[in-house]
Amino acid sequence: MAYDLIVIGGGPAGYLAAERAGAEGLSTLLIEKRFIGGVCLNEGCIPSKALLHCGHVYENAKEGKEFGVSVDNITIDQKYVIERKNKIVNTLVSGIKGKLKKNKVTVVMAEAKIVGRGAEGFKVEANGETYEGKKLIVSTGSVASTPPIPGVKEGLESGFVMTNREILDLTEIPKEFVVIGGGVIGLEMASYFNSVGSHVTVVEMLNKIAGPTDGEISTILQKNYEKKGITFNLGCAVKSVGDGKVNFERDGKMESVPADKVLLSIGRRPFTENLGLESIGVNTERGRILVDDHMRTNVAGVYATGDVNGGIMLAHVGYRETEVALNDILGKKDIMRYNAVPSVIYTTPEVGCVGETEDSCKAKGIDYEIVTLPMMYSGRYVAETEKGDGIIKVIINKKYRNVIGVHMIGNHASEIIYGAVTYIETEMPIDDIKQLIFPHPTVCEVIREAIFEF
Amino acid sequence: MAYDLIVIGGGPAGYLAAERAGAEGLSTLLIEKRFIGGVCLNEGCIPSKALLHCGHVYENAKEGKEFGVSVDNITIDQKYVIERKNKIVNTLVSGIKGKLKKNKVTVVMAEAKIVGRGAEGFKVEANGETYEGKKLIVSTGSVASTPPIPGVKEGLESGFVMTNREILDLTEIPKEFVVIGGGVIGLEMASYFNSVGSHVTVVEMLNKIAGPTDGEISTILQKNYEKKGITFNLGCAVKSVGDGKVNFERDGKMESVPADKVLLSIGRRPFTENLGLESIGVNTERGRILVDDHMRTNVAGVYATGDVNGGIMLAHVGYRETEVALNDILGKKDIMRYNAVPSVIYTTPEVGCVGETEDSCKAKGIDYEIVTLPMMYSGRYVAETEKGDGIIKVIINKKYRNVIGVHMIGNHASEIIYGAVTYIETEMPIDDIKQLIFPHPTVCEVIREAIFEF
Repeated sequence: MAYDLIVIGGGPAGYLAAERAGAEGLSTLLIEKRFIGGVCLNEGCIPSKALLHCGHVYENAKEGKEFGVSVDNITIDQKYVIERKNKIVNTLVSGIKGKLKKNKVTVVMAEAKIVGRGAEGFKVEANGETYEGKKLIVSTGSVASTPPIPGVKEGLESGFVMTNREILDLTEIPKEFVVIGGGVIGLEMASYFNSVGSHVTVVEMLNKIAGPTDGEISTILQKNYEKKGITFNLGCAVKSVGDGKVNFERDGKMESVPADKVLLSIGRRPFTENLGLESIGVNTERGRILVDDHMRTNVAGVYATGDVNGGIMLAHVGYRETEVALNDILGKKDIMRYNAVPSVIYTTPEVGCVGETEDSCKAKGIDYEIVTLPMMYSGRYVAETEKGDGIIKVIINKKYRNVIGVHMIGNHASEIIYGAVTYIETEMPIDDIKQLIFPHPTVCEVIREAIFEF
Repeated sequence: MAYDLIVIGGGPAGYLAAERAGAEGLSTLLIEKRFIGGVCLNEGCIPSKALLHCGHVYENAKEGKEFGVSVDNITIDQKYVIERKNKIVNTLVSGIKGKLKKNKVTVVMAEAKIVGRGAEGFKVEANGETYEGKKLIVSTGSVASTPPIPGVKEGLESGFVMTNREILDLTEIPKEFVVIGGGVIGLEMASYFNSVGSHVTVVEMLNKIAGPTDGEISTILQKNYEKKGITFNLGCAVKSVGDGKVNFERDGKMESVPADKVLLSIGRRPFTENLGLESIGVNTERGRILVDDHMRTNVAGVYATGDVNGGIMLAHVGYRETEVALNDILGKKDIMRYNAVPSVIYTTPEVGCVGETEDSCKAKGIDYEIVTLPMMYSGRYVAETEKGDGIIKVIINKKYRNVIGVHMIGNHASEIIYGAVTYIETEMPIDDIKQLIFPHPTVCEVIREAIFEF
């Protein structure tokens, strides 16, 4: 008997698909080869936040004097931090397993391979069994890119070089820690190890950190990191690693930095190897599965959600894509939109962004207006932040007078930014936002302050 | 020559009225007798948050072990905490003064008295001068209630008993600290002094703490405080204070607790004494100025915004009321609504609430549906909170399927709750909220989790 739905991959996009499908009464099979919860829960978002929070506690104790608090002999127990992280991951994975069970999802822990079409649907092999599904959602995620730089392969084998996977199990704090790649993952780990005592160097190919983040905000972020002792080598291409060193080229000249441990965080690529997509004719392009705005592939009944479609590689994008796919399966009207996707950097200071930047407005020819304010406009921010140099930028469409982008750097930004998602998604006129009551004193009030400047 | 507008009172409702009126080109006079910024900025919201943040830093250091961080010899310098608080207040007051100046507001520091009508408007005396204003906004705020309990008057004079005003300047940490009144102000100060080492006792007349806060949430809050060592005496009426004691009645029997310092925080009353309202015939009721939903008093051209009208005594309500009043003056359509007023308690854990509670739904006969979830549904909450027992409650209107109340207890609630204001204010259908992308992993995601349970 065929399942109504087979989901391949148990990360955020996959487990949510299975959970929701089960709740809707579809007979659902979830196949996962490694960990329920995927990279996000086991080797990404959640473990990194567990570490970062311990780092913040350590940092707070270290800088307590600014708030009148003095302590002696601060130490951090990295082994304990990792054990605690593992406990948190286990708790959350159990929660997901519980939900899957509650929603009557069958779970198979094995590698899946699509092998063709059967009488009732798509045939998928796992663990020696063949399963059939009327519909298929592929959510196999992504893997860390490992470039053919001399020394990387050997480094990964010896443990000298790590990806997001290994770094989150590191029980010793390296003296010299080098991060290749100044994107979000790299910055969060640079920030953690800096706060707990490593000497941290970041080597980045581009001339700015934090990827597509607003330029002014990444500059402020970098300055804050530098103040804490992180060194940045921007516009530098790593040429080799090994012998306790990372060697890179800057303006045509070779330089090197000492390294006890190296984190490779130059990006991620969709994972579709040996998946058997060709057996049913699913179109891919350089490894990513091509989809439309309903997450449909070129093959009717086959969907691809999450990192594997090569879109925005964030867990919450995967969640939403999965809902869109499922709504398509269920015959409910829905469509994927990427104009209000928030992104967050969980360091001190925090960064929270959503929607258009000045650069993207210019590129798209949007007639925009922008207000930039220091976060010091918030009384709570002043009360909690010593020498805070955070800012908020609010961008509106000049013609329609609605918010199209909000970008913040400063404490609490991570939990504030979601509110701006609503403004963008609903195209709420700024005159309506002016009538909303923001609690006082909060940091989120800077949004209100900015809105009143238009 | 008459001013277009005279504003009496320089607190949040008053300074914002003057600022905005000036920005709109009205010639504006602001009269304040004590401090620009009012109670909120000088003796309330802001200074308390400055103290609480220092308390959190201290608490974090103390409890660092749960996150792998060990320290020795933790001390807090209360004198430094108060000096820092004063610096923060000065910074923010300067900011407001700067804005008033920029918007060409004339500021007179003196007590104001309305003395009647002149040829061009209302006559107000201050500092021996008589000013005339075509319109009048009264924002004279509120003062702490001081009940006729034996010993209170003498205690206030000797410094044994304090209100919000004096407590925020206390440079020594009392050994035995007794708080009369378990509302928000009382709880925040109880929490601060508990965290920095006082033995704290709260005496409250009602059978619950935190005033109108959802009952389940106030119970969780109380348990958390009790775990930290705060003692609560609920359903107890204070009968006298003095001789290092607070004496109260419980179930008809007298008890007493030792006290080095006592905070009186049983509520606040609108301040209208000697204001001369009767000279122009403004209606009041037990000290509060009566207004309609445009903040108009019974006298055309005279408005009352903020605590003085005896509505919800929160700075952000005053802000909004002032905007409504000003829009009425400017001929812009607007109306005051109180259905989406957020409220926050800034302790550990934090509480953030907005909209209807189960009790208010029942009282109003609203057909509602409720979802309650543990905050543990948020991965970030789990990563950051040891043994967290926070919850979120989302209440929807059963017929219209839109959110009418959100109540949270747990870290970050203070900055999250504003987003729910939008849902309530715009009567956003829950099916639309389901399409919003929340950043992962955040605490605010529990809202999304709850919404998907409907």
